[in-house]
Amino acid sequence: MADYIDLNGAEQEFGDTAAQREVRENDRQYVFHSWSAQGQINPLPIAKGEGVRMWDYDGNEYLDFSSQLVNLNLGHQHPGLVKAIQEQAGRLATIQPALANDVRGELAKRIVEHSFEGARSVFFTNGGADAIEYAVRLARQSTGKRKILTRYRSYHGSTGTAITMTGEPRRWANDVIDGEVCHFFGPYAYRSAFWAETPEQETERALKHLEEQIILEGASTIAAVVLESVTGTNGVLVPPPGYLAGVRDICDRHGILMICDEVMVGFGRTGEWFAYQGFDVTPDLVTFAKGVNSGYVPLGGVVISEKIHNAFEDRSFPGGLTYSGHPLACAAGVATFDIFEEEGIIERVRDLGSRVVEPRLKEFLEKHPSVGEYRGKGLFWALELVTDRETREPLVPFNASGEAAAPFNAVVAACKQAGLWPFAAGNRLQIAPPLIISEEDLIKGLDIIDEALTVADSYYTGK
Amino acid sequence: MADYIDLNGAEQEFGDTAAQREVRENDRQYVFHSWSAQGQINPLPIAKGEGVRMWDYDGNEYLDFSSQLVNLNLGHQHPGLVKAIQEQAGRLATIQPALANDVRGELAKRIVEHSFEGARSVFFTNGGADAIEYAVRLARQSTGKRKILTRYRSYHGSTGTAITMTGEPRRWANDVIDGEVCHFFGPYAYRSAFWAETPEQETERALKHLEEQIILEGASTIAAVVLESVTGTNGVLVPPPGYLAGVRDICDRHGILMICDEVMVGFGRTGEWFAYQGFDVTPDLVTFAKGVNSGYVPLGGVVISEKIHNAFEDRSFPGGLTYSGHPLACAAGVATFDIFEEEGIIERVRDLGSRVVEPRLKEFLEKHPSVGEYRGKGLFWALELVTDRETREPLVPFNASGEAAAPFNAVVAACKQAGLWPFAAGNRLQIAPPLIISEEDLIKGLDIIDEALTVADSYYTGK
Repeated sequence: MADYIDLNGAEQEFGDTAAQREVRENDRQYVFHSWSAQGQINPLPIAKGEGVRMWDYDGNEYLDFSSQLVNLNLGHQHPGLVKAIQEQAGRLATIQPALANDVRGELAKRIVEHSFEGARSVFFTNGGADAIEYAVRLARQSTGKRKILTRYRSYHGSTGTAITMTGEPRRWANDVIDGEVCHFFGPYAYRSAFWAETPEQETERALKHLEEQIILEGASTIAAVVLESVTGTNGVLVPPPGYLAGVRDICDRHGILMICDEVMVGFGRTGEWFAYQGFDVTPDLVTFAKGVNSGYVPLGGVVISEKIHNAFEDRSFPGGLTYSGHPLACAAGVATFDIFEEEGIIERVRDLGSRVVEPRLKEFLEKHPSVGEYRGKGLFWALELVTDRETREPLVPFNASGEAAAPFNAVVAACKQAGLWPFAAGNRLQIAPPLIISEEDLIKGLDIIDEALTVADSYYTGK
Repeated sequence: MADYIDLNGAEQEFGDTAAQREVRENDRQYVFHSWSAQGQINPLPIAKGEGVRMWDYDGNEYLDFSSQLVNLNLGHQHPGLVKAIQEQAGRLATIQPALANDVRGELAKRIVEHSFEGARSVFFTNGGADAIEYAVRLARQSTGKRKILTRYRSYHGSTGTAITMTGEPRRWANDVIDGEVCHFFGPYAYRSAFWAETPEQETERALKHLEEQIILEGASTIAAVVLESVTGTNGVLVPPPGYLAGVRDICDRHGILMICDEVMVGFGRTGEWFAYQGFDVTPDLVTFAKGVNSGYVPLGGVVISEKIHNAFEDRSFPGGLTYSGHPLACAAGVATFDIFEEEGIIERVRDLGSRVVEPRLKEFLEKHPSVGEYRGKGLFWALELVTDRETREPLVPFNASGEAAAPFNAVVAACKQAGLWPFAAGNRLQIAPPLIISEEDLIKGLDIIDEALTVADSYYTGK
């Protein structure tokens, strides 16, 4: 059997250095890469992906604990997704958004039916960033207010308004595009911004802080509070008990909309269809992308409440895009719902998370001094690596690069060396494998992390 | 033979009112539509698309003279595109942008090789709007300047910065997101903003106007001038001789970048690979989307000059997206280049445009008083409809809606009634069929327009 299929459809075996060289050369010569100094990167050519694994051209195998960019919820080349795309490509690849299309309507229906009470419709976009852009527009246009409150330690995408809303270093180098965005602190018990000592106190103080900021910014000027239901790249920050419900309450009392950004955690990542559903809260708008079809075809969108939908019943919504509700993308979305049900994905995620991952991370905490804390939910976890548990000094400084990042890079290198592609973020090893991962592979990956943590331990300077 | 394939993959015949009702109901209930008052639209359910045609569930056939949203350059269900998508779906549907991928590199190479001299690399996006967002970011970050000059009567997309750059009514209802955008007037000989009487004078005065505005805005504050190489929805405004080269010269003299927005006209629409190539001009950045793969999979991007690429050689470009260089989308892009070559698309477009379309539009001008002017290039044309040739009073007022738009809507209805789906914009019938259209179908569509123009003539009040 062939190892992989090349660009011309021919079967090939690993170890073809000429093929590898061509892919690398075309990449270095012609592809401009995201978030990179173009002369300082050397992207690894990947020859094949299957399930939770990918292979380079030399046949080196990587267990993907990052689900690519936390989008590959159903793994590489899931037969159900591939089939849905191939069939839709054969039926009708595309149609413009002002016409009605069967698969678009079907996916919108499925999403609404799995969403919050009072959800009415879906506005489809191409990805997460534009989902955020349009959620903000829906909020501003329906309330007549402009200010948007978002959190520090958040990522909301990289287009104009989305990057301005982002509360981490990827925003720094960018100009402020959207002047009506304001950041607040969210709960993060391990590194509390509120001098809290318990999760309960963290919730209470985080809510007080938010309300105080709303009062001082002027509730009458604020269209929406936007938050990742569970913060993703910036730390898998699971909201402490009562926090999201408290935000909802504050929003209600001040006439402000609540937008949950589910681009990374939607579609099963935390063991719920949408992460907010684990916190007993009803948002007004929900953004999604990635997991909706595992990123097999670019797709994102906004779930819209009845109330906001109705604000545009007789008044035109001023926004749109050529590929809104793209049939090929929607077909993969409909298949995602089918596969989730057939394979009991939600139940698997809950089971594997609580039975396999959590106990093992607890073990890491006991065994590895460099593990300051573990936290997470479902198949979404973070290990906070520190050099001192007492001071909680991170393994590498915030936003470290170059030499300063060396200790963490050594941990990441140890993972890759052992065949695991980790979700590395700041001083954290994060865990986000495809949701279809077998218990065996999950344990295999955790074993590799276990071993790599000894590298982190070697930098430990605390008691 | 079946008429169409339904959502379950079953063969169906036209006339199934239950199927049609379900598509319509799901659409009305669950899909939030672009640029619309949700309660005032009733999108037509489409059951099938093939080549230059689409059919509703009753079997009514429409010849698509709008190429959907001017993206369907190779028509519906082109076998080469369908095959490329199906094969790539079976090989590797997706991979994250920080890894290297064969088909992404191959498409970037093809695009660069067909671009301007000095083109170096491609940054891939999901569509046209984010292509514009990132082109602006590349310009701002590489020049250290912030201001962006764009034209009135332009459309650049609907996300934050893109909609602010747009110079037509779709911007009006939106907040100004990006404060560093400034609009200027471009050439439009039929309705000159410069009191010009000849195309030569129009060019000369438009350039003088632009340079004057640059001087007053401050060249030292301006990162880029952005223009659609041939203005699309806002009138198929082909630049008069010397205009684009003149803009290039002004940009050079003032140290400003020139960005050509080729989202609508790139990939053959005007009979060139990129429209700017017909005007002997070398831009610094070029945005594309739509035609790159006929919109079969969402894809857009920016072609980047060597100089701008090099500005990010040792310095990180602060931007990116999960689906940048999406393999499935890129596979359809590579197939597009193959098909263009195999089918001689560029040559066909030039031939059909000059041999079939232009003489016929000239005939319309002679025959129909309501045709004030025709203009265009390749398979991209506009008929400017007026009620008086002397005063050039448009058939309906600028941005007309409701009752005021009735005369134009009657023309559009006559086209649809006769089986033609027109590209209707303002007071203009625009012509933008798939580039694979046969001479016979082209003539058939022009015949329908000919007939529909008698409706426009009935509103003519001039001499």
